[in-house]
Amino acid sequence: MNYCSECGSAKIVHKIPDGDHLPRDICASCGAIHYQNPKIIAGCIVEWADQILLCRRAIEPRYGLWTLPAGFMENRETLQQAAERETWEEAQAKVTIVQLYAVFSIPHISQVYMLFRGQLQSLEFAPGVESLEVKLFRQTEIPWQTIAFQVVSRALQHYFADCRNGHFNLHVEEIRPQAKEEKVD
Amino acid sequence: MNYCSECGSAKIVHKIPDGDHLPRDICASCGAIHYQNPKIIAGCIVEWADQILLCRRAIEPRYGLWTLPAGFMENRETLQQAAERETWEEAQAKVTIVQLYAVFSIPHISQVYMLFRGQLQSLEFAPGVESLEVKLFRQTEIPWQTIAFQVVSRALQHYFADCRNGHFNLHVEEIRPQAKEEKVD
Repeated sequence: MNYCSECGSAKIVHKIPDGDHLPRDICASCGAIHYQNPKIIAGCIVEWADQILLCRRAIEPRYGLWTLPAGFMENRETLQQAAERETWEEAQAKVTIVQLYAVFSIPHISQVYMLFRGQLQSLEFAPGVESLEVKLFRQTEIPWQTIAFQVVSRALQHYFADCRNGHFNLHVEEIRPQAKEEKVD
Repeated sequence: MNYCSECGSAKIVHKIPDGDHLPRDICASCGAIHYQNPKIIAGCIVEWADQILLCRRAIEPRYGLWTLPAGFMENRETLQQAAERETWEEAQAKVTIVQLYAVFSIPHISQVYMLFRGQLQSLEFAPGVESLEVKLFRQTEIPWQTIAFQVVSRALQHYFADCRNGHFNLHVEEIRPQAKEEKVD
């Protein structure tokens, strides 16, 4: 932040406001405190019998790699609406939400992933503008070496383990940086 | 937003960027797009045998009313850390997290509440600077008429119902505005 979004002053200082415990961007002219908070990424593990839907990214970061349909939650929507919308935008797929399945805190990039299980309503799906390709995969077909993000690999590992157990638990976890991840996040 | 936080220009327009689907604050001078996203509020239902801990608010909104220890998640922390920190700040209480218990989307104010069950580690607790009073309540003692927020009442209703059933499920819900809530949110 270079300028105050309230008054336009360039006198932005980074310090702890009175009564607070963390440094914030504060405008020394008008006193406005500019908070920054973690962002929510909502998405779906889209199921069709023993297959799940992955999208190959048409955007950076991780262009060309496979991911779950997921993206930034918008103001004025619910988590479920965000997950359904992202699934529609990236995979042109309609889902029926089954359950909240994985909640991953990623503190080093200040994100929280909220992934739902969603049943595909029909076999109609297609790449949205942010996807090169959208495809159903059985567990044995998952392209583990070309998955875009650690959080996606982790969700899929839990998912297929739970498939084997026949019981889908909620998974609440922290994702820590990996050497490979740190380069791009 | 009155001024661009990147370049200081007052030429902020509210329109849909190319390839996007929602209007954003865009700087007509430097082209910066200023996104706004929902905020996470993390907190705890703090348990001590058949009692839970409530805090009486020392701040607006809802000064003097009872709430669960909860507050805005900060960058670079996990959900659990946020819930534990808020419980410490508001109730000076140390908890051991048991489970993620309630996930409430509140789209009309663009917030997502993430409430954990947390066991009080000892009977040491006290009001933090944002609390007037901190107290343990049995179900029959809950001050239902002076609970600060609808989301808190809802969480407590689920909690005591689950206590009776002897089984604590995750609750994922939407909180819609009530006439009383709309006045202050």
